Amino acid sequence: MSERIVLEEKFAGFSDHWNPRVVAELNGQQVRLAKIHGAFDWHSHEHEDELFFVHRGEFHMEFRDRRVLLRAGDMLVVPRGMEHRPVAESECEIMLFEPVGTVNTGAVVSERTRETLQWI
Amino acid sequence: MSERIVLEEKFAGFSDHWNPRVVAELNGQQVRLAKIHGAFDWHSHEHEDELFFVHRGEFHMEFRDRRVLLRAGDMLVVPRGMEHRPVAESECEIMLFEPVGTVNTGAVVSERTRETLQWI
Repeated sequence: MSERIVLEEKFAGFSDHWNPRVVAELNGQQVRLAKIHGAFDWHSHEHEDELFFVHRGEFHMEFRDRRVLLRAGDMLVVPRGMEHRPVAESECEIMLFEPVGTVNTGAVVSERTRETLQWI
Repeated sequence: MSERIVLEEKFAGFSDHWNPRVVAELNGQQVRLAKIHGAFDWHSHEHEDELFFVHRGEFHMEFRDRRVLLRAGDMLVVPRGMEHRPVAESECEIMLFEPVGTVNTGAVVSERTRETLQWI
């Protein structure tokens, strides 16, 4: 703890999509990095709000009634209970801030579900 | 909530130093933005870990026994109880993640203490 975390280096260390890595933990929350490409599963989190920050590229956060374009340097909070899915036409690098234990697909279980995350 | 938050626009909206603004809240935590310049007060937070992310520029996080240079795109977690002070030779834009209610100067009270923060 209290070491410099270089996002550029962390992102260079993996290449698979929809597989978040943990880079920091504080106050019961984790900072996670992910590369995304394509459309994710529709899902929601019953008890967790989720923050998405775009490090590189852009993606749309889709809700059932609208979608929001997020570009590098933008962020958005998805409140607990709200169905959503990220959709990235090209590869996009994102940082997430959410409680320890948050499952990436929420209550949905799919081949993309990651219950155990790797620290990098 | 669940609106796009554009950091570039948020930072353009204020110019004073050491006066954090709140841009988001989730899971009892806040995302705050600050412009810093010079050396802050030595302080620690008894119950809160603090994450610092550099949006633009660079600064040193000083601890009693060492200092860590953080550049744009870098982050660092200061664990609760650890004395620290940010020092920026030139103006630097940072984003903080920390629990709601965290006071910027911790247990120290100075002319820089901000108990009530403005949302932008």
